[in-house]
Amino acid sequence: MSAPVTHSYPFAIGHGTENDFVLLPDHDGAIHGDLSPQRVAALCERRAGLGGDGVIRVIRTAALGFDQPAEWFMDYRNADGSIAEMCGNGVRVFGRYLADEGLVSTTEPVPVGTRDGVKVITFDADGELTVDMGTPKILGDSVVGVDDQKWPALNVDMGNPHAVAFVDDLLDAGSLLSEPDYDRSVYPDGVNIEFVARRGPGHVAFRVHERGSGETRSCGTGACAVLVAAALDDGVVAPPDEPVRYEVDVPGGRLQLTWLPDGHVLLGGPAVIVGRGTTDL
Amino acid sequence: MSAPVTHSYPFAIGHGTENDFVLLPDHDGAIHGDLSPQRVAALCERRAGLGGDGVIRVIRTAALGFDQPAEWFMDYRNADGSIAEMCGNGVRVFGRYLADEGLVSTTEPVPVGTRDGVKVITFDADGELTVDMGTPKILGDSVVGVDDQKWPALNVDMGNPHAVAFVDDLLDAGSLLSEPDYDRSVYPDGVNIEFVARRGPGHVAFRVHERGSGETRSCGTGACAVLVAAALDDGVVAPPDEPVRYEVDVPGGRLQLTWLPDGHVLLGGPAVIVGRGTTDL
Repeated sequence: MSAPVTHSYPFAIGHGTENDFVLLPDHDGAIHGDLSPQRVAALCERRAGLGGDGVIRVIRTAALGFDQPAEWFMDYRNADGSIAEMCGNGVRVFGRYLADEGLVSTTEPVPVGTRDGVKVITFDADGELTVDMGTPKILGDSVVGVDDQKWPALNVDMGNPHAVAFVDDLLDAGSLLSEPDYDRSVYPDGVNIEFVARRGPGHVAFRVHERGSGETRSCGTGACAVLVAAALDDGVVAPPDEPVRYEVDVPGGRLQLTWLPDGHVLLGGPAVIVGRGTTDL
Repeated sequence: MSAPVTHSYPFAIGHGTENDFVLLPDHDGAIHGDLSPQRVAALCERRAGLGGDGVIRVIRTAALGFDQPAEWFMDYRNADGSIAEMCGNGVRVFGRYLADEGLVSTTEPVPVGTRDGVKVITFDADGELTVDMGTPKILGDSVVGVDDQKWPALNVDMGNPHAVAFVDDLLDAGSLLSEPDYDRSVYPDGVNIEFVARRGPGHVAFRVHERGSGETRSCGTGACAVLVAAALDDGVVAPPDEPVRYEVDVPGGRLQLTWLPDGHVLLGGPAVIVGRGTTDL
């Protein structure tokens, strides 16, 4: 017999509408240094690691040397170790983590530093979180296709590019195992493609094919683009005169979208921390 | 601000050749009671849960009321919550967990209770673990097929049924996205199908299509069946006069197989605990 093995550093696991993350508390940047792509990839491995769509380091903005009016910074990495500027589901999970750890108060809005600037999170009465995702750019019409079918698609930029197409049935988009067709002259760097079906007044559902990832269970910026396309299709003139609200279903759950008269889009939805522990990865 | 949220019960995550498990320490059976299929499924969910091919409750044999000469019992559940009798990769991870926690000594063999009887684990000098998987039943020849190709296959029972076919190249088996053809009169309850390629003297590699799961990263009983088929193909008469050893590569790593003169097959390989923590799932 011997004393139990101890692990090197702490982690948490959480998800928002089944977009899942490994969180690494590293408040003063003393634990992970530059956080190598190799370590991020090892943590995100589904079977040999802890499993996640990405890694979120929880670090003070000052510890990274950034000049943003936010105590805490969401240092986000994709599963391959590359840096991403923002993630709408990730920032809610980040907020939930800060609250669960007692690092922020849930009674007032919390500014979060990101590489896309400061994002403001609010904790809703129903236990969900809402984040201000900024202002969409509506860039006109395009066309997407699967096999022999084609649909008109709205080109919406939420910091990343989207093509939003309405379909009669979500199954019309097929297996989505390969990338749908799109206009490469409009999207030279690729595009995230949303297929949207109506569910009722102010209620839509969509599936998404994310560039580089394939079909996913949820996409926060995609939900914002879908809100914009649905509202415009319903006769709303941008920006709206009063807040416009839609329920937006994704395979991993339900999101609450709001388009404000100042042009900003709010993304609301669940975010949970499912476990915490220590690892050597 | 508030005190950090605390979670309900402990877990660990580990894998052997990328066959991965959620371990639930519950030494005296006081934490999880009957361990509902719903909880097991929630824990094994890849994105909303902790993620695993199965759950292993770490419990004293006496706490389950079983009469086996082993202090610790591997209470194994499939990801859908159903009970499985044994898992060759799982029992190594179980042994690693017991050792990491200081619950057993690594200097002598450790008996582990399972629903398939007591299995004996040894801790190897190279840091790997070996488990006695018992005696194979060699049941004759069959045929398996993919698309228009067919291969002769050896029918080996390791407590579960296997059909082992030799191929020139592992890619000959195709995508394995659908179940290969097999003789349903020989395998009325389905079969695990191994496609084996030679790598050199005493060294083979295989891919496996597991019944009910599809292609997986590793299969412990499959590796035993592959050893038997390879040894017989190399002219060994069952049982062998002296220990016969093969290196067996799977997509998730490398296993060490030994066929003993008493007919038993030993399965050796890596097993690691990648994290420990607490959860509310």
